[in-house]
Amino acid sequence: MNFQPRPDEVRFLLQTVLGATPRLRALAPFAEFDGELQAQVLDEAGKFVAEVIAPINRSGDEEGCRFADGEVLTPPGFRAAYQALSEGGWLALSAAPEDGGQGLPAVLEAVLFEWLSAANHGLTMAPGLLHGAYECLRHHGSEELKQRYLSKIASGEWLATMCLTEAHAGSDLGQVRTRAVPQGDGSHRVSGGKIFISGGEHDLTENIVHLVLCRLPDAPAGPKGLSLVLVPKRLPDGTRNAVHCERIEEKMGLHGSPTCVMRFDEATGWLIGEPNRGLAAMFVMMNAARLHVALQGIGLLDAAWQKAAAYAQERRQMRAPGPAPASRGSEAADLIAEHPAIRRILDTQRAWVDGARLVAYRTALQLDIARHDGDAKARERAQRWCALVTPVLKAACTQQAFHGASECLQVFGGHGYVREWGIEQVLRDARVTMIYEGTNEIQAIDLLVRKVLPDGGAGMSALLLELRDELDAARDIEADVQRRLAQLRYLGTTVVMAAAADAALPYEVADDYLRVVMLAMLAWAWARIERAAPGEPRWSQPVAAFRRWVLPEFEMRLGIVKRACEAVTLTRPAA
Amino acid sequence: MNFQPRPDEVRFLLQTVLGATPRLRALAPFAEFDGELQAQVLDEAGKFVAEVIAPINRSGDEEGCRFADGEVLTPPGFRAAYQALSEGGWLALSAAPEDGGQGLPAVLEAVLFEWLSAANHGLTMAPGLLHGAYECLRHHGSEELKQRYLSKIASGEWLATMCLTEAHAGSDLGQVRTRAVPQGDGSHRVSGGKIFISGGEHDLTENIVHLVLCRLPDAPAGPKGLSLVLVPKRLPDGTRNAVHCERIEEKMGLHGSPTCVMRFDEATGWLIGEPNRGLAAMFVMMNAARLHVALQGIGLLDAAWQKAAAYAQERRQMRAPGPAPASRGSEAADLIAEHPAIRRILDTQRAWVDGARLVAYRTALQLDIARHDGDAKARERAQRWCALVTPVLKAACTQQAFHGASECLQVFGGHGYVREWGIEQVLRDARVTMIYEGTNEIQAIDLLVRKVLPDGGAGMSALLLELRDELDAARDIEADVQRRLAQLRYLGTTVVMAAAADAALPYEVADDYLRVVMLAMLAWAWARIERAAPGEPRWSQPVAAFRRWVLPEFEMRLGIVKRACEAVTLTRPAA
Repeated sequence: MNFQPRPDEVRFLLQTVLGATPRLRALAPFAEFDGELQAQVLDEAGKFVAEVIAPINRSGDEEGCRFADGEVLTPPGFRAAYQALSEGGWLALSAAPEDGGQGLPAVLEAVLFEWLSAANHGLTMAPGLLHGAYECLRHHGSEELKQRYLSKIASGEWLATMCLTEAHAGSDLGQVRTRAVPQGDGSHRVSGGKIFISGGEHDLTENIVHLVLCRLPDAPAGPKGLSLVLVPKRLPDGTRNAVHCERIEEKMGLHGSPTCVMRFDEATGWLIGEPNRGLAAMFVMMNAARLHVALQGIGLLDAAWQKAAAYAQERRQMRAPGPAPASRGSEAADLIAEHPAIRRILDTQRAWVDGARLVAYRTALQLDIARHDGDAKARERAQRWCALVTPVLKAACTQQAFHGASECLQVFGGHGYVREWGIEQVLRDARVTMIYEGTNEIQAIDLLVRKVLPDGGAGMSALLLELRDELDAARDIEADVQRRLAQLRYLGTTVVMAAAADAALPYEVADDYLRVVMLAMLAWAWARIERAAPGEPRWSQPVAAFRRWVLPEFEMRLGIVKRACEAVTLTRPAA
Repeated sequence: MNFQPRPDEVRFLLQTVLGATPRLRALAPFAEFDGELQAQVLDEAGKFVAEVIAPINRSGDEEGCRFADGEVLTPPGFRAAYQALSEGGWLALSAAPEDGGQGLPAVLEAVLFEWLSAANHGLTMAPGLLHGAYECLRHHGSEELKQRYLSKIASGEWLATMCLTEAHAGSDLGQVRTRAVPQGDGSHRVSGGKIFISGGEHDLTENIVHLVLCRLPDAPAGPKGLSLVLVPKRLPDGTRNAVHCERIEEKMGLHGSPTCVMRFDEATGWLIGEPNRGLAAMFVMMNAARLHVALQGIGLLDAAWQKAAAYAQERRQMRAPGPAPASRGSEAADLIAEHPAIRRILDTQRAWVDGARLVAYRTALQLDIARHDGDAKARERAQRWCALVTPVLKAACTQQAFHGASECLQVFGGHGYVREWGIEQVLRDARVTMIYEGTNEIQAIDLLVRKVLPDGGAGMSALLLELRDELDAARDIEADVQRRLAQLRYLGTTVVMAAAADAALPYEVADDYLRVVMLAMLAWAWARIERAAPGEPRWSQPVAAFRRWVLPEFEMRLGIVKRACEAVTLTRPAA
């Protein structure tokens, strides 16, 4: 089965649980935004995704992209679907009206991209970095560059890439060697090789705008000597620029998206932002891009869950233990959905999808607040949320996409391993999300070493207090979550102390710390959902699975981090 | 890099830690078996695997099997490699000398198959069920059948299949519909369709011997009406039998092994064993076959580890935290092996490979004891070990193969997702081991519901006491393991009580119970290894990772099972 968006469930999370509508209306650009408009956009988006995007997912994987003579052919149907996506205005959903956008909240765009990824991860890669490129250019581009490229990128009429990685420079961008030499006329000549460039070449749009991380002559070594240069495939006069795709990678999955090896041979480009401030210009879009990867993870897990849930309601094998289920009838075997092992898989993955969604949508809402709130303190709080929660979501949701999709595959037995059922594609596609936009190990280090420790844990502590205050201590379940949030605050102090004694320690426990934060946030999310829909089986079944099988990892990880810290603080003197 | 067997490490585990040599020499058929012979066999096997089998693993995945007009072509090189495997006597390693075998212990065959799977899972599938078919025929075949097929199967001159699954009958074999009609001359006519038949058709051997689960006329419904019939591809007079491959499956991986849809159209066959006792005849080989799947898991994880460890010793990215590592020199970036996140992945997976190996080799040794010990009680104890430990190993090692290989892929960053590095093949190949020979969910139910509960936990308790008695309470680490084994015995009693109150409960906690048993056995294994090689970094690094990051799951799973049992026993009256 193809992925089917559920706008009703998203509306429940956004409106009923998060109260998004009044919060958005308090922001100047969205003063007119109401529940009805939101419902309309979500319903239309859901229909579009189901009818245009989802049906070409399997064929996109089977056919894949083809490379010949420097040209890349995307799978049959991709070009038409992409054009419908762009021409329908879907890519400009949250772009500013002055750039031809619809000026809708980022949170709606987040939902759309979650669904697009769930329906067709390969195709969705094409516009995946578009919004980031738009923001980057909008904030750092010269007037001339904006004039020439901004509205084309906002609408998706031209696609964009981020050219960062080189063969020897992956996580370590400081080692980038691609050179940009100023020509005196304001342009630069860019030379070098880049790898892992998603959509570096394709037949979806007439022009492709590359944002290339490179080094000016005499730039300082390391990450502080990097500049960002815009290099279009076609120059303003229509001629072909000296940027070429040398080959596309054969990958484990994501065959609908060409991963290109790119060659720049004195290609013409223009600087975006200040010289040697390329990383800063790029980081504008980092949080939004990483949140989108987290949403890919959530979407892919939901797609896997939908397939498995449907199969479990058709396939019969053996008698289920315990009292006869209503679905038994005269059949010799019960639906596998009635077997505890299958029920557990389905409810547990559902708990991940719903809980992670609530955290992700709230994060997208914070992006809107960070951009548009009139109150500087509110903007700062929202930025803090995005900085701290985004790496957590990116790592945890992509890990769960892969591992949870594998659980869903297990529901199919041997059929799950066979391509025709489509579930194995989800695993293969999802695997890359644990790597790109910063590997999950880098996310954990980003969270703990770069964001929690530098202010002695104060920012994270404030965020945890914010969450605590949204819960009601009079309700047992919410009080339990409050207790966990308090443990997490205390854990922050413990790690800060230990890090002072051993600089390597935080790197060793970063993964566990990130997991424990995610589990606490899921517990917070489910407490909020449960309060909004008490006793409804649609939500009470997953939350029961969450408490039984997911949440116990909280204590386990907490213990791992604590013991590691104690070992350090008890045995080594503070530095 | 191709997989490279390490006979020295296997010898350390087998001889030094497990004391296998004197134990084997106490068995009549192995009275002459000494450490030197063992070393010779392992060294030769290691060379053969590295030189003949491993080099065609990647090309086997890329080329895959081809199907045309009912024929299956295996990938280039597979036929020659298979013939070398068969003609070198490797497949008959543990077969009886009177059947042309070498009469060596099963534990050596286990090591060989672990290496073969690590080196080339696809090719190793071909002889994967050979030994099971040999045992089945040897114990249940008529003299005539044995005369005709036993030595050909023992040597691998002819390959064998197990034809169990049908489209509607996977885990639920009771629903098998294939019919076998007696012909009065001792033969049967077999008709029906089978799916997921590994090696149902191929070009590796001249003949293929199918063991087909089917139903005689008027057989009772369900699993007690199943019979086992031998159906050869070529009849004794050389003509083609009416068994055909209709197509091969397109799969996620394991492209070197054809997964066939088979059609039997009144094919000629002969009954193996008694009518309606087909499952019993098949179960003879179940423990050995499941142990081999566990060994596939261990081998594949080791193959992934070897690739990741080698890459981590070449690739440099960023500075590692803490004091400068010796490998730094004048390089601008450190080896990724020096980064804590990578170190953790490598040490943790190494801990799984080594610990699981020790448990698996001990289990293979128990197969030898169960077969050959002169003392009935010793045979019974060994059988109990195999019955209880095999499902634990099958589920836990295959799960770890997939998830651990995914961790190893992470070491490569983006390169891991690209096919040319070969690591993603390990994930795709390994995924099926969680499904075949009984899904991992079925293994957990087999362990808890079919094996632990029926005798009130007595058998498992006796096994845990056996493990406890091998440990030295005077050593802190070993006393800790003894404490865990005691917790596990107590947990058995708890589950027995709860199961009396709620028949569905054991099915709900079966997975957790299996995990907690595996973790206790790993803790036992590492205590034994550590005592044999105190302070050697080769072993002390993985065991440190094991205690820090793997073992905490023991408490978590224990808690999950206990809480579930308490909820039942506190709220519901005993039945």
